Amino acid sequence: MKRVLLTISYDGSRYSGWQKQAGRKTIQGEIEKALKIVSGQDIEVFGSGRTDAGVHALGATAHFDLPVNIPISRLADVLNNLLPGDICIKKAQQVAPDFHARFASKRKTYVYNVCTGKKDAFKSNYQAYITDNLDYDKMQKAASILTGKHNFEGFCSSATAVRDFEREIFSITIQKKANNVVFTVVGNGFLYNMVRIIVGTIIDVGRGRITLEATKKALKTGDRTLVGVTMPPNGLYLKKVEYI
Amino acid sequence: MKRVLLTISYDGSRYSGWQKQAGRKTIQGEIEKALKIVSGQDIEVFGSGRTDAGVHALGATAHFDLPVNIPISRLADVLNNLLPGDICIKKAQQVAPDFHARFASKRKTYVYNVCTGKKDAFKSNYQAYITDNLDYDKMQKAASILTGKHNFEGFCSSATAVRDFEREIFSITIQKKANNVVFTVVGNGFLYNMVRIIVGTIIDVGRGRITLEATKKALKTGDRTLVGVTMPPNGLYLKKVEYI
Repeated sequence: MKRVLLTISYDGSRYSGWQKQAGRKTIQGEIEKALKIVSGQDIEVFGSGRTDAGVHALGATAHFDLPVNIPISRLADVLNNLLPGDICIKKAQQVAPDFHARFASKRKTYVYNVCTGKKDAFKSNYQAYITDNLDYDKMQKAASILTGKHNFEGFCSSATAVRDFEREIFSITIQKKANNVVFTVVGNGFLYNMVRIIVGTIIDVGRGRITLEATKKALKTGDRTLVGVTMPPNGLYLKKVEYI
Repeated sequence: MKRVLLTISYDGSRYSGWQKQAGRKTIQGEIEKALKIVSGQDIEVFGSGRTDAGVHALGATAHFDLPVNIPISRLADVLNNLLPGDICIKKAQQVAPDFHARFASKRKTYVYNVCTGKKDAFKSNYQAYITDNLDYDKMQKAASILTGKHNFEGFCSSATAVRDFEREIFSITIQKKANNVVFTVVGNGFLYNMVRIIVGTIIDVGRGRITLEATKKALKTGDRTLVGVTMPPNGLYLKKVEYI
């Protein structure tokens, strides 16, 4: 039995998110289906986290135990031939038997794409649209306020079952290029919907709906009514999960 | 009552095709839903043709009768604000009361995208993959054989209810750029799955699975066993529908 860590990219447009659900197409479900064909057995895959319906990944990770003797070096190709084209195993590597894709994760990088230009049917599944004018200076200030170790209770969906809301954001960078704004958020871990709410709050500051003072207060009080909109899933990409 | 012609682009990845179906997301269904919000009434939309699940459009067309007094010049914006981001009304124009998007169509242009390079999760919904070597000279010859007025009975899905199989292909062009091959097929009309089977036949000639002689014979006899594979839907785009 070998423990294997996968690095996975996927276009989440056609899927009901990462997590397996009866009667729905999910990333975890498709990977487990492919592993069953490879091994003849039911294999459970443990992701580094869950992504919602429509969220994409450039470098998601997941581990599982492989009960059959297939060379790990061939595993990515074998799985890619079985998986739908919009799920791609970028790397398969053997890890220690007690390695855990979620608990061992030290650092995650998310990217959020916003378009400030015209609607384009072929880009819509890959970015959010904002038509309001944005004050980039204020947005940078909001990003600074949110960076660091904070109680992010106000910045997660109330659907969460988590009780410990402290997380550390290492950096938030905002890059503007022509009609696109790219947010890159790096942290030690994220609560449910936290990246989408962080980006929504920064954008709401940028369009004048929320003040910088309210943003500070939201961090102190955990008050969800003070934070910004939850951005739609389609602009979000899990870019990287780091373990060391 | 004004008759309106829409020009529509859509990313078909998330949809079960053009045609309305109970319990499924379809392009026609989404447009009719938006029109109901605009008009308060059930409006039936008539497409220039049906596209299958996963097929895209750059310039599909459809007509309907608008029973309320909304300026046609504002209609595209109004509908785009109501429609999902991956369906985009490019143009709305008033046409004669007896105009029909399907019956008046004189010329349709389809594009089919093939990638001969590596699998990429984010391109998979927009192109087909071919790993075999292709003989482009032979493919050009197959394209010439298929161009013209022919009985295309062998080049359509047996699921069709149509009885008249004569169609005219005005041109088939094959463009190779780096790792991409783009097929552009222009004709006066197309049978069910006809473009995907034409492209599949040309590719099967290119990889040596089918001879040019068999292709000629398929046109003469209508024998489906002589034609090539039906290419997957995701590489197909309805580019243009012309009426004059």
